[in-house]
Amino acid sequence: MTSHIVQPASLKDYIIALFSASGVKTDQCEAVASNMVWSELVGRCNFGVSRIPVHIERLEKGVLNPVCQPRFESVSVSCARLDADNGFGHYAGEIGMEKAVELARETGIGIVGVNNSNFFGTGAYFVDLAAKQGMVSLAMSNSFPKVVAYGGTKAVLGTNPFAFGAPRQNGENLMVDFATSSLAGSTVREYLGKGEPLPEGLAVLPNGDPLSDPARIGEGSLTPFGGAKGYGVALMVEVLAGILTGSGFSHSVKSTYSNFVENSDSGHCLIAIDVEKWMSKLEFYQRFEALITLLKASGEADQVLLPGEVRWQNYKDNLATGISIPLVMVATLEGLSNKYGISPPWEISLLATGS
Amino acid sequence: MTSHIVQPASLKDYIIALFSASGVKTDQCEAVASNMVWSELVGRCNFGVSRIPVHIERLEKGVLNPVCQPRFESVSVSCARLDADNGFGHYAGEIGMEKAVELARETGIGIVGVNNSNFFGTGAYFVDLAAKQGMVSLAMSNSFPKVVAYGGTKAVLGTNPFAFGAPRQNGENLMVDFATSSLAGSTVREYLGKGEPLPEGLAVLPNGDPLSDPARIGEGSLTPFGGAKGYGVALMVEVLAGILTGSGFSHSVKSTYSNFVENSDSGHCLIAIDVEKWMSKLEFYQRFEALITLLKASGEADQVLLPGEVRWQNYKDNLATGISIPLVMVATLEGLSNKYGISPPWEISLLATGS
Repeated sequence: MTSHIVQPASLKDYIIALFSASGVKTDQCEAVASNMVWSELVGRCNFGVSRIPVHIERLEKGVLNPVCQPRFESVSVSCARLDADNGFGHYAGEIGMEKAVELARETGIGIVGVNNSNFFGTGAYFVDLAAKQGMVSLAMSNSFPKVVAYGGTKAVLGTNPFAFGAPRQNGENLMVDFATSSLAGSTVREYLGKGEPLPEGLAVLPNGDPLSDPARIGEGSLTPFGGAKGYGVALMVEVLAGILTGSGFSHSVKSTYSNFVENSDSGHCLIAIDVEKWMSKLEFYQRFEALITLLKASGEADQVLLPGEVRWQNYKDNLATGISIPLVMVATLEGLSNKYGISPPWEISLLATGS
Repeated sequence: MTSHIVQPASLKDYIIALFSASGVKTDQCEAVASNMVWSELVGRCNFGVSRIPVHIERLEKGVLNPVCQPRFESVSVSCARLDADNGFGHYAGEIGMEKAVELARETGIGIVGVNNSNFFGTGAYFVDLAAKQGMVSLAMSNSFPKVVAYGGTKAVLGTNPFAFGAPRQNGENLMVDFATSSLAGSTVREYLGKGEPLPEGLAVLPNGDPLSDPARIGEGSLTPFGGAKGYGVALMVEVLAGILTGSGFSHSVKSTYSNFVENSDSGHCLIAIDVEKWMSKLEFYQRFEALITLLKASGEADQVLLPGEVRWQNYKDNLATGISIPLVMVATLEGLSNKYGISPPWEISLLATGS
């Protein structure tokens, strides 16, 4: 056995209990747990429970605010700014998108700029939240610099995730969601695990030489995806989520993983557009499904996927079978559980009993 | 001598006169001429006068409306739809972005969806138009399918251009502007001219084989830029500019170049965000310049460019020296000028006098 299986509801209760015992306010616990469990269900495990330890460490070291009091400020009729008060980005992202949806319901389009925030999990979670309410939406966040500009050799932009979503009648909403770097951090770790070199062009050393040894990634930087075009998208995220919101940008955004003395000060941009203002929901669904049918027919069977399609398949599979937590993560979580006096969501630790 | 040099004002007057003689209403002539001359100045010559002949042909064949009466429809407080009445996309894009700016001035963000339109030239023109008025903005258009979905083998999406802009105090505004395909049509023609094969992965045949001979591009399709991520961006453009606006999408958008019996029915999406609602213009400028300074310092001297930077250098150079029209284009334009009884903006044709 290499993993424990946990039901989503139990996992959610556990995450809430753990963060609650760490002093985090209920509404934040709820948002973080929902986001993490959803990430586990759709198979984005690197945004799931594996992030718990670093958040606990940031809470313990006082660089993440457990009792944040986010403040909305009206910018104009369709725009709001949210000072996240250095709380969880998951929470700021959720209440920010809900506000964008509310503004869009009133005026057709709403935009919320979040500053003074932290890592927000997966952007797909927020665009799905909006799609469930009949919205086409965008979710972006800037982050700690790990990525070079096109033509550059030193990191200056974050992996700056970008997400776009649109509703479908079957609820399996479109979710475009990607890091604007050519490689995600988790992919580097996969290469490291397999002992394989990184493909050329995906990472560079400060002297401009290509970096191929995944173990040396800390010495170099990632490149933007798609060359100059991806650099343009990463820069757009930095302007919309960073410059315009009043948050940190470039080097003034601090690392979640390696800086435990300063706030992250990352920013997010959340935009919602109310479909029903443009046409009936049914008409939108029909037009979108017609496009999806054409997309599907443009390749061999099952070769063309709608962005998000694999996530929804994972979601259904994991709902049926439960969420799998690797034993190495089980051990880490048991350590934290003991420390905070919480029962983990599995009955007996196989590690603890030695089996 | 391989080209004629023309001053921008003369070229603009000439384009207006030529389209006017083709029966096009004054306001449309003005918009098309401004867009084309600007494209020539910034060095995007494939969006300049070289497109005149195909537009004239579409006008003559009755598939482009010279006397269009675009109709705005209020969608909601911050949103408007524009039926372009099958007129020039350059015109619809311009009045659409002006409307988006007006809405943003009132409510902070404005979005205009355009349907029943045509090729709109370069998206950078519209985001610069908005930036001149203190707006951060996006401009997107869907187009005739030439690009496969990620994993697909047959064209189903247009090259779907995407543009993003932001204002700078020196007026050399940020202009991110690209086709969401891995290769522009004009780049294919460059490979053809040099007799070189296309790099692998940029084009495919309907059986899924790579297409490397640029002369056979008509038999195959382009791939999206940046793999699955670029496919996601192209799809976003199709949803925002196509599905949501009520325009054609995928195969119901017709080719400007090869279909002279049907309207193009392409759609555009124009979004403007008023910077001054978020912070003073000066503060935005200062923050943005601080980011640009960091970008510039992240590579060797002059190796990191701000998107649009080369365009502004071209703009200044061409303003000083005049716009260069290749002789082959001169000959084509003289043919059209004779047909419509217009004087071209150069005094004597070198071709006509045989020198």
